[in-house]
Amino acid sequence: MRNVIRLSEIGEFPLIARLVRALPAEEGIIVGPGDDCAVVECDGATLLLTCDAAIEGIHFRRQWAGAEAIGWKSGAAALSDIAAMGGRPRFMLITLACPPDEDVAFLEALYHGLSAAAAHCGAVIVGGDTTRSPSGVMVDIAVVGEAVGPRILRRTGARPGDLLAVTGRPGQAAAALSALQRSLDPGELAQAHFHPLPRILEGQWFAAHDGVHAMIDLSDGLLQDAGHLAEAAWMGVDVDPDRIPVSDAMRHALESAGEDPAAVALSGGEDYELIIAVEPADFKTIQTDFQERFELPLTVVGNFTSEWQGARVRGIAPKKAGYDHFKG
Amino acid sequence: MRNVIRLSEIGEFPLIARLVRALPAEEGIIVGPGDDCAVVECDGATLLLTCDAAIEGIHFRRQWAGAEAIGWKSGAAALSDIAAMGGRPRFMLITLACPPDEDVAFLEALYHGLSAAAAHCGAVIVGGDTTRSPSGVMVDIAVVGEAVGPRILRRTGARPGDLLAVTGRPGQAAAALSALQRSLDPGELAQAHFHPLPRILEGQWFAAHDGVHAMIDLSDGLLQDAGHLAEAAWMGVDVDPDRIPVSDAMRHALESAGEDPAAVALSGGEDYELIIAVEPADFKTIQTDFQERFELPLTVVGNFTSEWQGARVRGIAPKKAGYDHFKG
Repeated sequence: MRNVIRLSEIGEFPLIARLVRALPAEEGIIVGPGDDCAVVECDGATLLLTCDAAIEGIHFRRQWAGAEAIGWKSGAAALSDIAAMGGRPRFMLITLACPPDEDVAFLEALYHGLSAAAAHCGAVIVGGDTTRSPSGVMVDIAVVGEAVGPRILRRTGARPGDLLAVTGRPGQAAAALSALQRSLDPGELAQAHFHPLPRILEGQWFAAHDGVHAMIDLSDGLLQDAGHLAEAAWMGVDVDPDRIPVSDAMRHALESAGEDPAAVALSGGEDYELIIAVEPADFKTIQTDFQERFELPLTVVGNFTSEWQGARVRGIAPKKAGYDHFKG
Repeated sequence: MRNVIRLSEIGEFPLIARLVRALPAEEGIIVGPGDDCAVVECDGATLLLTCDAAIEGIHFRRQWAGAEAIGWKSGAAALSDIAAMGGRPRFMLITLACPPDEDVAFLEALYHGLSAAAAHCGAVIVGGDTTRSPSGVMVDIAVVGEAVGPRILRRTGARPGDLLAVTGRPGQAAAALSALQRSLDPGELAQAHFHPLPRILEGQWFAAHDGVHAMIDLSDGLLQDAGHLAEAAWMGVDVDPDRIPVSDAMRHALESAGEDPAAVALSGGEDYELIIAVEPADFKTIQTDFQERFELPLTVVGNFTSEWQGARVRGIAPKKAGYDHFKG
């Protein structure tokens, strides 16, 4: 009798490794599975391809977000993968699955949110699929982007001694969710949770600077995503949570709930800020120019090392680095 | 109070019309929503983009198909959309949603089937997304293709007097399903149901022939898909079911169940044969050359008219032309 292995026993990343290991190498693939986007040559063009699903009850709940915000958030998550490699998003395909008794106005508002997020990032919905689901709404978003300059910024590329820097103030989306879960008004944190802004132009700007060696967007949480950068370069990354910039609104919302802002900044996902591995000698110039160009903080929150592997917090390996869809 | 409109009241195609009507026109869109693929210009390339979902309990059931066949079939459905416009499929993104207790071997076999269908059509999986689902497996497949020659064959373009012709022997997938539902062995029909072959090269061949005015693949059933060709050209199409070629295996399987083979050939979906609107004066040459090149029948099964709109069967409008995902 075959020994059945359940997905929950192995988790998300080992599943992906199993699925993709048998895929053939093919002409035209510049970056295959394992980065934020695939990068391919097609009909003379350099394309960035990515997809991202949002499922009711897993990724979103109607009691906390309106249909338009659910659409925006889902679209932003997919578009952010293009930002994470420094590309320009162009076209989106939307698969929409829902039960027959779904409210048409809900679907229209969700689609409007998707379309608005696309427009904000310079992309447009060009097609998709609609189908019945057994229960709940499911949205899957494929994005086609193009390379802007000669350089695509990958997850790989961090070097020993590189600094880890983050844009903006991560953790605000998680802090807003914490307020919503306690039936409190998230106030000015609502924007980060309901209408996150993919860092499209910021990503393109980083890709144009040779001092930036590697990049990823914050979808799983700063510590886990920093770990992805480290793993991709067979290195370690040491993060200092006290260096992560925390907004007053976030500090206030979390402290009133007895939560530690630094911990939420470290583990909260779905911010869609960018983190980069950057050459120490170039950082000051990059920081000054970036902050002037985008009016957004760029802050060193850690550094890469070849002495060990994985992500650590002030030298200590955490028990659990972030969210796993299947071990949960 | 707002008057809630349920999706089941309006159905699939009016939903799509509502969703896409607010989409902005954008530079680079050659064909937007409403055809088998979107066609766009991106970084100098002409791309065909499509996506297609397969959901457990809606599109497939494990008691009738193994994991590998479910993967192949789902992949073939998406790849066939590229065939339907005469393009060349190149790259696929796979979104895979499943519950944590899913059997890893099932997912690996499903993925293998997807990859095999891609390879059969000259395409390759380059990435995707894996996530948790509340229940059951859901696969969504995005395909990026490229234009082969200067011409993309659209749904629009049929002219009054054009002949309607079909490749192969449609209805075999539905006939196999009918056998499976009665717990009978579908025999040689199994191939059509479990491993349908998208007509990639055939589609490219049609696109290279000016006498072929419009094309679509058979996913919803011959009558409904012929209706899509007619509607796209604001015309009517009259189909004669007795002219649809029926294989001996299909006739035998259906007659033993008291079903009419001509009716199944007319309404059965998921065959992924192609139907075309073709210039009558060119048909004989096209037919001879096609059948010699592909060893596959190309058969006239109807004709287009400007005298009325929609799809009719020997002049009579059917009560229900095909499957609607939401009206059931």
